[in-house]
Amino acid sequence: MEFMTLVGLAAGFCTTVAFLPQVVKTWKSKSAKDLSLGMYSIFCTGVLLWLIYGIMISDLPVILANAITLILAVSILFFKLTFKS
Amino acid sequence: MEFMTLVGLAAGFCTTVAFLPQVVKTWKSKSAKDLSLGMYSIFCTGVLLWLIYGIMISDLPVILANAITLILAVSILFFKLTFKS
Repeated sequence: MEFMTLVGLAAGFCTTVAFLPQVVKTWKSKSAKDLSLGMYSIFCTGVLLWLIYGIMISDLPVILANAITLILAVSILFFKLTFKS
Repeated sequence: MEFMTLVGLAAGFCTTVAFLPQVVKTWKSKSAKDLSLGMYSIFCTGVLLWLIYGIMISDLPVILANAITLILAVSILFFKLTFKS
């Protein structure tokens, strides 16, 4: 595999798994006061569009990375709407 | 322009500008308690790798989107490290 491809894969891995510690933190603390509702609303819309785009261009890495990111980001958006403190 | 390309552009626009409301919110409130340091550390690393990947493949949209996202995400990481409450 080319070095360039490895950099791209590492990039996609990081920007996908990054949301996991936020999901765990918010779930444990039950506090989402400092999280921006605007950010997670726009971000979830964007990731859903990336997923649709990935399906349109039949690109498995784009589909996979954005499917996982969507699950994590929607969870954070759900916590933001649920935990009122 | 193809519809598919428009979906991709809208996706990139959303996942980039999404971080702006979080920057504004955290700057105004001076509170970053609920933000995950792990998330922003891994996310900034990932966006930097995307930027390097974009330069490697000479893709202007990937370079532009990730340069802007990096500035916004690094600002949030900086706020997280600065605002202790």
